[in-house]
Amino acid sequence: MSKHVYFFGGGKADGSAGDKNLLGGKGANLAEMVNLGIPVPPGFTITTEVCTAYFAAGNKYPDGLTAQVEDALSRVEKLLSKKFGDANNPLLFSVRSGSRASMPGMMDTILNLGLNDEIAAGLAKKTANPRFVYDAYRRFIAMYCDIVLEVKKEHFEVEIDVVRRQVAKGKGIDISKINAEELKKLVPDSMIEADDLKSLVETFKGICKKHTGKDFPSDPKEQLWGAVGAVFRSWHNARAKTYRKMNDIPESWGTACNVQSMVFGNLGETSATGVAFTRDPSTGENVFYGEWLPNAQGEDVVAGIRTPFDITKAAATAKGNEGTSLEEKMPQSYATLRDIYLKLEKHYRDMMDIEFTIEDGTLFMLQCRVGKRTGPASVRMAVEMAQEGIITKEEAILRVDPSSIDQLLHPRLDPKAEKKFLAKGLPASPGAAAGHVVFTADEAEKQAKEGKKVLLVRTETSPEDIHGMDAAQGILTARGGMTSHAAVVARGMGKCCVAGCSAINIDYKAQTMTVSVYDDAGKPKETVVIKAGDLVTLDGSAGRVYQGAVPTVPAQLTGSFGTLMEWADSVRKLKVRTNADTPKDARVAREFGAQGIGLCRTEHMFFAEDRIAAVREMILSETEEQRRKALVKLLPFQREDFVGIFKAMNGLPVTIRTLDPPLHEFLPHENHQITELSKTMAVEVTQLLKKNADLHEFNPMLGHRGVRLAISYPEIAEMQFRAIFEAAKICADEGVDVQAEVMIPLSMTKRELDLQKELFDRTYEEVFKGSQKKPRIMYGTMIELPRAALMAAELAKTAEFFSFGTNDLTQTTMGLSRDDAGRFLPDYVRLNIFAKDPFQCLDAEGVGQLVSMACERGKATRPDIKLGICGEHGGDPQSIEFCHKVGLNYVSCSPYRVPIARLAAAHAVLKEKGGKAVSNA
Amino acid sequence: MSKHVYFFGGGKADGSAGDKNLLGGKGANLAEMVNLGIPVPPGFTITTEVCTAYFAAGNKYPDGLTAQVEDALSRVEKLLSKKFGDANNPLLFSVRSGSRASMPGMMDTILNLGLNDEIAAGLAKKTANPRFVYDAYRRFIAMYCDIVLEVKKEHFEVEIDVVRRQVAKGKGIDISKINAEELKKLVPDSMIEADDLKSLVETFKGICKKHTGKDFPSDPKEQLWGAVGAVFRSWHNARAKTYRKMNDIPESWGTACNVQSMVFGNLGETSATGVAFTRDPSTGENVFYGEWLPNAQGEDVVAGIRTPFDITKAAATAKGNEGTSLEEKMPQSYATLRDIYLKLEKHYRDMMDIEFTIEDGTLFMLQCRVGKRTGPASVRMAVEMAQEGIITKEEAILRVDPSSIDQLLHPRLDPKAEKKFLAKGLPASPGAAAGHVVFTADEAEKQAKEGKKVLLVRTETSPEDIHGMDAAQGILTARGGMTSHAAVVARGMGKCCVAGCSAINIDYKAQTMTVSVYDDAGKPKETVVIKAGDLVTLDGSAGRVYQGAVPTVPAQLTGSFGTLMEWADSVRKLKVRTNADTPKDARVAREFGAQGIGLCRTEHMFFAEDRIAAVREMILSETEEQRRKALVKLLPFQREDFVGIFKAMNGLPVTIRTLDPPLHEFLPHENHQITELSKTMAVEVTQLLKKNADLHEFNPMLGHRGVRLAISYPEIAEMQFRAIFEAAKICADEGVDVQAEVMIPLSMTKRELDLQKELFDRTYEEVFKGSQKKPRIMYGTMIELPRAALMAAELAKTAEFFSFGTNDLTQTTMGLSRDDAGRFLPDYVRLNIFAKDPFQCLDAEGVGQLVSMACERGKATRPDIKLGICGEHGGDPQSIEFCHKVGLNYVSCSPYRVPIARLAAAHAVLKEKGGKAVSNA
Repeated sequence: MSKHVYFFGGGKADGSAGDKNLLGGKGANLAEMVNLGIPVPPGFTITTEVCTAYFAAGNKYPDGLTAQVEDALSRVEKLLSKKFGDANNPLLFSVRSGSRASMPGMMDTILNLGLNDEIAAGLAKKTANPRFVYDAYRRFIAMYCDIVLEVKKEHFEVEIDVVRRQVAKGKGIDISKINAEELKKLVPDSMIEADDLKSLVETFKGICKKHTGKDFPSDPKEQLWGAVGAVFRSWHNARAKTYRKMNDIPESWGTACNVQSMVFGNLGETSATGVAFTRDPSTGENVFYGEWLPNAQGEDVVAGIRTPFDITKAAATAKGNEGTSLEEKMPQSYATLRDIYLKLEKHYRDMMDIEFTIEDGTLFMLQCRVGKRTGPASVRMAVEMAQEGIITKEEAILRVDPSSIDQLLHPRLDPKAEKKFLAKGLPASPGAAAGHVVFTADEAEKQAKEGKKVLLVRTETSPEDIHGMDAAQGILTARGGMTSHAAVVARGMGKCCVAGCSAINIDYKAQTMTVSVYDDAGKPKETVVIKAGDLVTLDGSAGRVYQGAVPTVPAQLTGSFGTLMEWADSVRKLKVRTNADTPKDARVAREFGAQGIGLCRTEHMFFAEDRIAAVREMILSETEEQRRKALVKLLPFQREDFVGIFKAMNGLPVTIRTLDPPLHEFLPHENHQITELSKTMAVEVTQLLKKNADLHEFNPMLGHRGVRLAISYPEIAEMQFRAIFEAAKICADEGVDVQAEVMIPLSMTKRELDLQKELFDRTYEEVFKGSQKKPRIMYGTMIELPRAALMAAELAKTAEFFSFGTNDLTQTTMGLSRDDAGRFLPDYVRLNIFAKDPFQCLDAEGVGQLVSMACERGKATRPDIKLGICGEHGGDPQSIEFCHKVGLNYVSCSPYRVPIARLAAAHAVLKEKGGKAVSNA
Repeated sequence: MSKHVYFFGGGKADGSAGDKNLLGGKGANLAEMVNLGIPVPPGFTITTEVCTAYFAAGNKYPDGLTAQVEDALSRVEKLLSKKFGDANNPLLFSVRSGSRASMPGMMDTILNLGLNDEIAAGLAKKTANPRFVYDAYRRFIAMYCDIVLEVKKEHFEVEIDVVRRQVAKGKGIDISKINAEELKKLVPDSMIEADDLKSLVETFKGICKKHTGKDFPSDPKEQLWGAVGAVFRSWHNARAKTYRKMNDIPESWGTACNVQSMVFGNLGETSATGVAFTRDPSTGENVFYGEWLPNAQGEDVVAGIRTPFDITKAAATAKGNEGTSLEEKMPQSYATLRDIYLKLEKHYRDMMDIEFTIEDGTLFMLQCRVGKRTGPASVRMAVEMAQEGIITKEEAILRVDPSSIDQLLHPRLDPKAEKKFLAKGLPASPGAAAGHVVFTADEAEKQAKEGKKVLLVRTETSPEDIHGMDAAQGILTARGGMTSHAAVVARGMGKCCVAGCSAINIDYKAQTMTVSVYDDAGKPKETVVIKAGDLVTLDGSAGRVYQGAVPTVPAQLTGSFGTLMEWADSVRKLKVRTNADTPKDARVAREFGAQGIGLCRTEHMFFAEDRIAAVREMILSETEEQRRKALVKLLPFQREDFVGIFKAMNGLPVTIRTLDPPLHEFLPHENHQITELSKTMAVEVTQLLKKNADLHEFNPMLGHRGVRLAISYPEIAEMQFRAIFEAAKICADEGVDVQAEVMIPLSMTKRELDLQKELFDRTYEEVFKGSQKKPRIMYGTMIELPRAALMAAELAKTAEFFSFGTNDLTQTTMGLSRDDAGRFLPDYVRLNIFAKDPFQCLDAEGVGQLVSMACERGKATRPDIKLGICGEHGGDPQSIEFCHKVGLNYVSCSPYRVPIARLAAAHAVLKEKGGKAVSNA
């Protein structure tokens, strides 16, 4: 008989932190805490295996489960000297999901399970706190109905609203013009008395009967099994599915189910509840960081309905809220909590996210897990923990997910820019973002799909809003703290977020938000009405909101970040270059640590306004002579660009690709543009139309481009070679260390390379004839066609280096046009045909075969061949790991991804040595 | 010191037939004949190595050549007791090119070399035939000037014209309205007397002086070296280059130069010249076949200026020309010739093409080579020679070039069709063709490029016309025999040709041809004027010309052809299937010997008029439900097609590919079509435009097509599966042996195949539920993407067969769109980047790697996996050899290429065993 149920409590647990796969993160950590001697309400975990067996059997529990649950129940009863279902001495449970990976708020939780009329009456008598009991009871019924019996929670909320209005009336408050949201603020739950709550219980049971046709189950055991099944089934709810897709969590894992005896933070003023992090999850600073609420249940803190207090005196004081902290209010409990958090961080060797409840002065831990953190915090914690000796440098490197540092590299608001301040909220997730205001997640998604940058503005967010948060540039909420849903999710997404901004008031119906703007002295200054579509800017690091779009400046890459990068650089073997087409880009990339340019696209230089005329003149040429005439005009521009780039990259390699795109890309296609061009170039419209028709291609991706252009019009390549060589000559004469590499695109035969090489050599001789300094200029090719990879041994006879153009190589190997695949790629990801979008993450098993084949074959011909990648995969951590494995010399990516690549390259080395990446950003 | 010069003569030669590479075909065969004791005018051959050395050294002869030539010259002088340059007893030479491969008429020849004023006078005295001598002398000067000194031959022709007009005037002929062509007929060369010829010599020398600034060289040695250099240089003339490109002859081979003592067929009525084939080169019949002219030089026969006589009595008699044959006129020489031709055919074991000259009653052989022949003749000769025991069956198979039998498979004129007879000429090259008349090669090329079918009509053709002949459907000439340029070249090209059609008279200026139509009794009936652009039909097998376009019927594949095919079938290992989409095509292909259908494209069924409406309804559907409604309408059509195909292919496999092309291919794109569709389908034009825009793809080749459609719209595939299964059920119930194979296009992951397989299995179960007969239906996939080839081991887990779609595999592997590559592919072939168009001949070294990789990997997973090819390469002999080598089970090609494939597959086996293909078709 398999072990289905793992007991924990009384200082001993069946499981431990190592049993995450079986018990889920929550269950495993509860067991671990018990084993560490930390006070945890006893309970038991039903394993993830039971969940998968339950689904496999068509929602049926496996044999033997009932007996094991009964056994565990009686162990809890014995330990607490209470009895589940005993009206005189009742035991209540929480039933929560808990999977291997943390999926905050995604699945369902039921609290206060085990209550019925009789037991409630008994408990009211026992605790002499009927208000508390009936509050718990009505919450339980609503929660259970919602989750287990699928009766919508709105039905219950309407009834609470009715009660609230009665309470308000009783207090003489005018409620005629007040909406439900405002009413909630005026009449908080705490103002509803026991009798009202008790009658709500009856009303709720009526709702249940009305919608399910059955009485609300009064048998605690029946309640328990209903809840367990619902927790399991919640694994397949829509929110959970979306979250898993976003976070690459397999469907097959399933969730465990934790049944834990209830403790209450809402028994009165000696009770409390809170959540905390052992270090600041937003900045990474080594300070205990958390929020608490007296006389509250845990959900009150997380849901953001009441704005919580700081735990530490220092934090509260800093905000001008002296005396509100847990440290000051309940020093004993605080001291216990402090001991526990230090013990936990030491034990887990990481920043921990903990939940606690104080029941009548006694502190219990309800949950602990490795805490999620922002990218910047992740970097700072990793570096400081290594500096503190808690972890090694290698571990520190592996602690930071390369993808997550993206947010460190984003721009921040320009400090010198004029800003119109609107309001201040909590700095919930760093970074800056400007966008058009939208008020619903659906609208955010819709407008983002249309290419618009939007900010999602909500009173508070809930798991139903995830798709809109994903689509928005940033999130602004009127309510909720640093651990509110909006804040946690935004940090996870690396999106900027300002939370709990109470100066704003949202009218969803009118699609406006009204902002009460205060002056520096805190006096009301004006009221600004922002309509949907208006531009607003958020500074997530400062928690500030501005009107209009504020300009930004680049991120600064110093401090912990710089240290981490140094450590990564000392470990990695892959060099990291950048794709840059201008001297300016080249300089930016160098600041990001780029060790050269892996791809300089010469055609981008053609599009500039002062050049495009000559380019078009060249295209419209009918003879080689005309073409050469136009090319002569382009030469100085190209030469000048290369001079700038060589100087910016003094001492570092610069790979320059000759003209790649089909010529029709340089001609206008819209009628009015053609008419205009006809005028400015004094060319007949008909001739332009004819040229467009001549150059039209059915499949331009597979058309007349790359080296094929240079084969047809060698004079174009000759001009480019000349521009490169002349620039190199100018720079070399000025003492610049030029390390140019000329790269031929789209080749697939040695002969193509040979023909171009002749021209290359001849032009080199012409340019450098009689020169003192002759910088060596390498000659190589892109590998971006399957045939090129297959023929690599041949190509390497002429090419001194290969650079994998994995964008095109993916397109041709998979027969997949990046411009068109959008129509079916989502189906392909949804149906698990592709694990990931192959244009974002290199298809290692397919396209990767060609890459590694080309590496082997190229090396066989030319052992010292230089190998690199310049497709967009060069900035994708998983693809970089692949590049390391196949032995490339470098990756090249966009400037802002250079630090990501540096870190990913270090990860690749450490993983090869057996290191494991653990990230909670 | 290398041997540069090979002597032949006096019964002994330095070389032999085996020295073709060194001596060229002509030189090697001259040596061989000498060794066989056949009378050949003595001479020597300067090797091809000298030619390549000459070019390599910048048109300079290698050391030692002069001495070796001098030595050979003196051996000839000794043998003939004549002296080169001796006015009293002069020796004259011909200087001819001769490369490894026969290139008839492509390079230059100089005759009568060694004449100057003094020698001419001496020879006139010695022969007492000044007319002959000065005729030879003026021809020599014109030829030498044209070829060696680059003075255009028109300059000389103008002067001959002047003389002709004088002669005509002298004879009282009115020449006022006569053009040069007509004048040539009225005053043939033979009517120009010695004195006129002698004065022409002076005139010609004047022309030479005027254009070159120098006297015509009178030193015979100087003449000789000039001629040798010109012959070498003629290797690089434009005609020769075109011919080599058309016939895959490498530039590097170079030509040999044959210097041979002159014999004269124009010394009077006891002299003659002729060309012959040991068997009929047009039909392959085992009869001696040739033409001769008394008192003529060889060029007169070949050039088609005089219409020659038949050699054998039988042939002459059959044409009603009794008494004109060589057999009758010069029986002694004929007997010698007969002995020689029988000896040669026995010795060479093949049909020989021979040239002879009778000088004053003595017969000399000037050339012998394996004779070119039509495809049908090639088949008949090979089969009959094997049956006669001259060669083996295997040799017979290898004697027939698979590509050449194409012309056997072409349609012939429908015997029952109404035809308007115009004229009769010589059946110069079999087959039938209709087309619009054009009168110049350039026009033929131009109109063919525009997609028009044209017939090239010329008085006679010359090597300058090759590009036009290549572009035309057929060729009609007014003059020239079966061995005229037009006839030889047309047979080589497999094009239909009617030659020597004297009833037509062409006016190039007016762009008309006037046809004198005769009745059956030979009496003039009417005169028809055909203008450029009018339709005319040629029957090349019967030598008949018809007005208008006459319908055709398919070829009949019996007799020798059937025997050869049987032999090939007994040898080959590859099966040959066909690509067929309709029951009719299937039946045709089966008659051609197809062993199944390798590719049935279901979408072709969608385009039929009675179906396209339902197809469009399906495409315009917004929901799956609407789509299913439209698909229900298509189902019966598809089922009916499959029933027809299964019946036609009873007992043979039928591979059916599910829908492949992108959906937009089924919608109209022209405005007027859209408007029309809008009316017939009662759909808004805007909706149609929107759908077109929605479905537009930048690179449709890499777009939403193949299995990707079936993944997005499984209901389409489901309908197709159902139609196949229901058809199979109907046929099986009627006792038809159904061997269906369902093929998924464009797949590249196992998961795609698995998803479709689920649907396939489910639909199969539904259709065959409760059936008695359940034909096994195989499930497989196309391999047409590089990734599919790379992942073959995975795909073979689900696929029971692979069919290589080498069209698309070539496009993706090479990144080459077939629709667009025309813009640069010619450059690529010209610059030797591609040896051949990769869409015609499989790129074995590149794309082939993926094919063989997929075969290996597929077999590793599933040892009995069925492997085939269904790209157009399946009908290309060279590609078929590759398919055999990599171990495919079958090739599939278009119906008309099935016999070619059967033969090519046999070649592949025999070549593997060391056999060598020799073809002269």
